[in-house]
Amino acid sequence: MQKYEIAVLPGDGIGNEVMPEALRVLDVIGAKYGVRFDHRHFDWSCETYRKTGRMMPEDGLDRLRDHHSILLGAVGYPGVPDHISLWGLLIPIRRVFDQYVNLRPVRLLPGVTPPVRDKQPGDIDFWVVRENTEGEYSKLGGRQNEGTDRETVLQTASFTRFGTDRIMRYAFDLARKLGKPHVTSATKSNGIYYSMPFWDERFAEISQEYPEIRVDQDHIDILCARFVMTPERFDVVVASNLFGDILSDLGPGVTGTIGVAPSGNINPEGRYPSTFEPVHGSAPDIAGKGIANPIGQIWSVGMMLDHLGLTEAGADVVAAIEQVLGDPTAPRTPDLGGTATTEDLGKAIAEAI
Amino acid sequence: MQKYEIAVLPGDGIGNEVMPEALRVLDVIGAKYGVRFDHRHFDWSCETYRKTGRMMPEDGLDRLRDHHSILLGAVGYPGVPDHISLWGLLIPIRRVFDQYVNLRPVRLLPGVTPPVRDKQPGDIDFWVVRENTEGEYSKLGGRQNEGTDRETVLQTASFTRFGTDRIMRYAFDLARKLGKPHVTSATKSNGIYYSMPFWDERFAEISQEYPEIRVDQDHIDILCARFVMTPERFDVVVASNLFGDILSDLGPGVTGTIGVAPSGNINPEGRYPSTFEPVHGSAPDIAGKGIANPIGQIWSVGMMLDHLGLTEAGADVVAAIEQVLGDPTAPRTPDLGGTATTEDLGKAIAEAI
Ligand SMILES: CC(C)[C@H](C(=O)O)[C@@H](O)C(=O)O
Ligand SMILES: CC(C)[C@H](C(=O)O)[C@@H](O)C(=O)O
Repeated sequence: MQKYEIAVLPGDGIGNEVMPEALRVLDVIGAKYGVRFDHRHFDWSCETYRKTGRMMPEDGLDRLRDHHSILLGAVGYPGVPDHISLWGLLIPIRRVFDQYVNLRPVRLLPGVTPPVRDKQPGDIDFWVVRENTEGEYSKLGGRQNEGTDRETVLQTASFTRFGTDRIMRYAFDLARKLGKPHVTSATKSNGIYYSMPFWDERFAEISQEYPEIRVDQDHIDILCARFVMTPERFDVVVASNLFGDILSDLGPGVTGTIGVAPSGNINPEGRYPSTFEPVHGSAPDIAGKGIANPIGQIWSVGMMLDHLGLTEAGADVVAAIEQVLGDPTAPRTPDLGGTATTEDLGKAIAEAI
Repeated sequence: MQKYEIAVLPGDGIGNEVMPEALRVLDVIGAKYGVRFDHRHFDWSCETYRKTGRMMPEDGLDRLRDHHSILLGAVGYPGVPDHISLWGLLIPIRRVFDQYVNLRPVRLLPGVTPPVRDKQPGDIDFWVVRENTEGEYSKLGGRQNEGTDRETVLQTASFTRFGTDRIMRYAFDLARKLGKPHVTSATKSNGIYYSMPFWDERFAEISQEYPEIRVDQDHIDILCARFVMTPERFDVVVASNLFGDILSDLGPGVTGTIGVAPSGNINPEGRYPSTFEPVHGSAPDIAGKGIANPIGQIWSVGMMLDHLGLTEAGADVVAAIEQVLGDPTAPRTPDLGGTATTEDLGKAIAEAI
């Protein structure tokens, strides 16, 4: 029997509520496909930080290293500044495990009413490919004259050819694999003087390796506007760390799926485990009530299965989500206009598989 | 007779087509209010660059300095890299004249169908206040190991307490003036390690000077999503240079007004001239056809009048735009679904005043 070891980190807030539903689905998939998923739990969170002054133990990354994948809930909670909780857990995992691709679907789903008008499921269906290890997210910088009127803060983004080329190739390869021969690059070379003209150069260069793929390049300001105005025109969008972060929240915002969208933090070569997590955060406002929507976490399981090579199982999970969402008699959590609990919705999806 | 000297820079592409309509409206306002507007033309553009290797003459800024305001069309054209055209004209004007506020309305207009559903004129009506002289737009940085596999590019954003505090105060003062007691700060302190936590600190500090104003703070990723999902919740949004750039295109994208939105680059103290320009660019695809929508340029005149203290005249211009847009029999350019020319629409607005 095939066996996968999954590190499970529910994290903070609703992470703890949606994770059991994801594991429920994972177990159903295991039974159906005759595959074993061993899950090992790690309770690292802002709670851990409050107790120990660290988000995870010193050897935390080593303890994760030997898993096939990491399933993460949500990190961050009021009382612990975000830049501490994130740079103490989420971001080191992304970087040390060289998860240089952050991959997120933007898809209009049945049963979900998007804020934009005149769009049907099928009209909007694309992927945001975000660079996940360098760029604008950096600890390069600092403060001068702190606490005075002359205080100055510098923050340096760093872009390497190595890091830029590989994310672009991933985007082009994905477009090829999906049969969506169109890649859009997010830039801002008219305002950001050094890094973005470099980004454009690399995009022009790498695109030549994929002559059959149509390319577009939009400044991030107008690109965001186009996500709202003409979302149907996108297939694969490649972006830097910050721009990808923005686009991969905005996209699900446009399709009304921000509460249910998943993401993969992927090391494509499989040298290190990849992390799968919902796009939503720990949602302190509804935490503890048992009403959080578990679909983002469950869909993350779907992406994980796909990454592990269990393509059919991954497609099953997505199909089950679509089936339940499209069925007006199925349970719905309050964010979808219903009164169901997290567990009700999780069970319905597990049964649909 | 009151007299104002206006520097007129049509720039590139459709800038040359929409500017005459803006000046038509300005002249009508002059006649109505008994004010004289002298316009001096400057043909600086990408054309100038191709001929002289510079976007403007060496003493260009000095030649603009003594005007009451600058009315700009659009800068940038294929063949001249954007970072050259912009850093050679638009950005130096913003910086040398200390136009530290970039102000843009996000407003649902009558007669314009927005891409979002279920919204009426009045529902969406807010301002984006963007820092316009520092932050992420900088020439701090450079390349190392150029042309090799080890190529690295650094790009440094710089935030000063001086620059951050003054833009925040402007936003709070604007909220007070408009009777919209609510300011939202755009941040990303969970990912951008040094600059954005500093931004948050300053926001917390400055907000204490305005105890009656309600504050919110959203990370830029979710904030962009909220612009689409719940645009009615915003009143004044304050943001760094890059985030403000993104939000002030996204906002008009949501209201369907990207082709007609204006912007002010404002030196609030009036020590230097302020610049008023449409949000749209030079639109090479339709340039030369006489079908560009002149409303963005005309609305910019409205903002300019307001800035010059001619508040009633400014309101007149906006009212005329709304009247023409709301009248189904009035001329409409192709972007609004009609067949009118730039001139037809310009004349209709001028007549409505
Ligand atoms: C053209 C470009 C440099 C400019 C900017 O990013 O500031 C434009 O997008 C704007 O918003 O005025
Ligand atoms: C929590 C935050 C640091 C993170 C990011 O910006 O990367 C989140 O927004 C995401 O997109 O996963």
